[in-house]
Amino acid sequence: MSNSPSNPKGTRDFLPSELSKRNHIIDILKKNFKNFGFSEIETPALEKNSTLLGKYGNEGDRLVFKILNSGEKVKKADIEALKSNNLNSFTKSVSEKGLRYDLTVPLARYVAQHQNHLIFPFKRFQIQNVWRADRPQHGRFQEFTQCDADVVGNNSIIQEIELIKLYDKVFTELGFDDLVFKINHRLILKGIAEYLGIASNLNEFISIIDKLDKIGIDSVVKEIKYMFSNVSISKLENLLKNKSLSFDNISSILCDIPLAVEGLDDLTSIFDFISNKSINNEIKFDLTLARGLNYYTGTIIEVSSKSNTRLGSLGGGGRYDDLTSLFNMKNTSGVGISFGLDRIFILMEERNLFPDHLKNSFDVIVINFGINYLKEIYPVIDRLRNQNKKVLIYPDQVKLNKQFSYANKHNASYAIVFGENEYNNKEIIVKNMIEGTQSTYNLKKIDSIIF
Amino acid sequence: MSNSPSNPKGTRDFLPSELSKRNHIIDILKKNFKNFGFSEIETPALEKNSTLLGKYGNEGDRLVFKILNSGEKVKKADIEALKSNNLNSFTKSVSEKGLRYDLTVPLARYVAQHQNHLIFPFKRFQIQNVWRADRPQHGRFQEFTQCDADVVGNNSIIQEIELIKLYDKVFTELGFDDLVFKINHRLILKGIAEYLGIASNLNEFISIIDKLDKIGIDSVVKEIKYMFSNVSISKLENLLKNKSLSFDNISSILCDIPLAVEGLDDLTSIFDFISNKSINNEIKFDLTLARGLNYYTGTIIEVSSKSNTRLGSLGGGGRYDDLTSLFNMKNTSGVGISFGLDRIFILMEERNLFPDHLKNSFDVIVINFGINYLKEIYPVIDRLRNQNKKVLIYPDQVKLNKQFSYANKHNASYAIVFGENEYNNKEIIVKNMIEGTQSTYNLKKIDSIIF
Repeated sequence: MSNSPSNPKGTRDFLPSELSKRNHIIDILKKNFKNFGFSEIETPALEKNSTLLGKYGNEGDRLVFKILNSGEKVKKADIEALKSNNLNSFTKSVSEKGLRYDLTVPLARYVAQHQNHLIFPFKRFQIQNVWRADRPQHGRFQEFTQCDADVVGNNSIIQEIELIKLYDKVFTELGFDDLVFKINHRLILKGIAEYLGIASNLNEFISIIDKLDKIGIDSVVKEIKYMFSNVSISKLENLLKNKSLSFDNISSILCDIPLAVEGLDDLTSIFDFISNKSINNEIKFDLTLARGLNYYTGTIIEVSSKSNTRLGSLGGGGRYDDLTSLFNMKNTSGVGISFGLDRIFILMEERNLFPDHLKNSFDVIVINFGINYLKEIYPVIDRLRNQNKKVLIYPDQVKLNKQFSYANKHNASYAIVFGENEYNNKEIIVKNMIEGTQSTYNLKKIDSIIF
Repeated sequence: MSNSPSNPKGTRDFLPSELSKRNHIIDILKKNFKNFGFSEIETPALEKNSTLLGKYGNEGDRLVFKILNSGEKVKKADIEALKSNNLNSFTKSVSEKGLRYDLTVPLARYVAQHQNHLIFPFKRFQIQNVWRADRPQHGRFQEFTQCDADVVGNNSIIQEIELIKLYDKVFTELGFDDLVFKINHRLILKGIAEYLGIASNLNEFISIIDKLDKIGIDSVVKEIKYMFSNVSISKLENLLKNKSLSFDNISSILCDIPLAVEGLDDLTSIFDFISNKSINNEIKFDLTLARGLNYYTGTIIEVSSKSNTRLGSLGGGGRYDDLTSLFNMKNTSGVGISFGLDRIFILMEERNLFPDHLKNSFDVIVINFGINYLKEIYPVIDRLRNQNKKVLIYPDQVKLNKQFSYANKHNASYAIVFGENEYNNKEIIVKNMIEGTQSTYNLKKIDSIIF
């Protein structure tokens, strides 16, 4: 029995006021996912360790929450492994399952497992929690919600186009108009590495490019020169330093490198379809966009606010080939995006983008003058609820100011007053709590009550 | 790397067709919870073991999924405890957190923890998953969804009345009209035990009464006689055997026992308010309803189908005093109900109660004649999505029958056809996939397209 009860560090309880805002975002996401033809799926929080481990790198493996085997099974604990400090073997001996770490590996597992029951191309969205045994710190949670939309089993560039349109639609509906959708292509980055003669060091090259935003072009050029002594300085400066990093410039420099041309063609198709006139936010080629995850192989995209760069990206995604090959299902391309719920929440809160009505826990309070009066007007309550009004009956027959104060704390818009006087006069009084006015209705004509 | 990927036993992947039906139920639940003035909260999946353990009995403690401590912390494993087969101590040495086992203990923890930020009476609903390390078997899951609505901090009988109305409203909207809401009161059961002179053996008595449904009155009487030699046989037979178990009869027998009268008064208030005319299902006093959980102290209720008794209850609940006292917050009464999502699903499936439109993954397919045609009619697509139509663009420019067959597999209602001919004629063809008809619209007058 704990003296001051609390939730574990790194996890969150959501109060009603907070959750209604989160759900406002999620509702808009879901509606648009569906309107773009995505179907919702869910996978279990528990996955086999054999599904989870080895997919997220060593650090990821460490951060997967492992479930302790139940009952007698823990007797199989490998004490020798523990004594010899072989924590992996020890963990393996006492745990067979872990908690979902992201939504992408479970998607791959799901698609491979249920391939005969799915119709391809398979457009799915998924909004579920994931867990990571990160050190809890400000703004970093051990349990958080991921919101992903992916298309599995199709190579058409129309998917990338639709995903950008989807981003634009969702963020517009949430109230954003100052976002930039940065876009790049893994094959362009590969092409550049080839152009520079460092194709075999692609990952190192990408990790330097990734830093351009933070350290600037000069430092990037310096780092590349330092890391790769064989790089042609003139090509490097030609590419990064002396020219603007515009799509047209990059295109003309890389036009002889087939890999790069493939990537450039993809982006050209996208820019042909989506102009900055056809969306509410901005779309922009960004050579420095790399996105850390190794599994991307084609177009990559990232969403960020132009006025708040400190917060980081609000979403991102891209195309990955053969994700399901981890589960022995070959030649299945995927492309998807995700929305960063917590950051979107923070930015909307900062900008006051949540609609006012989210503050009401209910619309109408029914003032309590005793159970017999409540019974008499219950048909009115029923009718209002049928009209999708949120109606709360104040539960106790106490002083009116206590009841009205409860209603005000909840930002209720209307109060229904029906006591002895009203009963005798066969009427109902409806008070408008915001404007301070009131109307009187005939009890026999409740259909006429309009809020 | 696993050869045939699978989710862990006892857990479920949800295919789109299944999830859309589950969400149909959940949406109706949420809407009605809100219309009855409940606010949604969420608590983390991870709770401290100190919060979870000791609340669900020994069996419950065993069934809580424990999380293995991360990283170096597992080094603190108590090897001696393991060797001496003291599995509880061993578990304690390697685990500090567990997975949410129900929504009631987390609610109590939440209310005690956040009491200064909540407005009482606090009406909350919560729809989240819980985990139990039960042996997986048919129809029993290790991960499942609970749907609870509770009022914390109020003793008024209007709460019980509203919860029954809520049950009736939700189940009516889901399509049920053959349910019975069985109702009883813990104080009546206590009163009977007192009447029989076995007040100190209340729990044993309740567990026998609980079996009446299965073993019949004769066996129950026999068991009580056997268990409690001091019971007055005449009183016992008077109560259970020679009389019908109607509310009126029980009332007249127990009218001298103050405890019982308190319970009888509560139920009288409920029956005065809710008659079988004012609800769509049936409400019925049932002396044999006991509900296993020890924490109930007042009214108890259970919902079941009259025509399918094999399935068990579709929901249940009741009033419990002082739940939060587990977390040092005294005098806080609670009353709540829960909905059994999986059983409701099974029964709706059996009775074909799910609306047809849930079968459509999308409403409209846009036939693909190449990306330039898609770009040309994208304003139509945008407009349909703004009208909340689910629109899927077929991603590849392939044979028409392949595209139409994809649409049919998804039960799409309409197809938009816009190819070379249509482009030249500046028109759009909309095929009604269900009726086999088609309409032609002027490309310049897309506002006239009505589905």
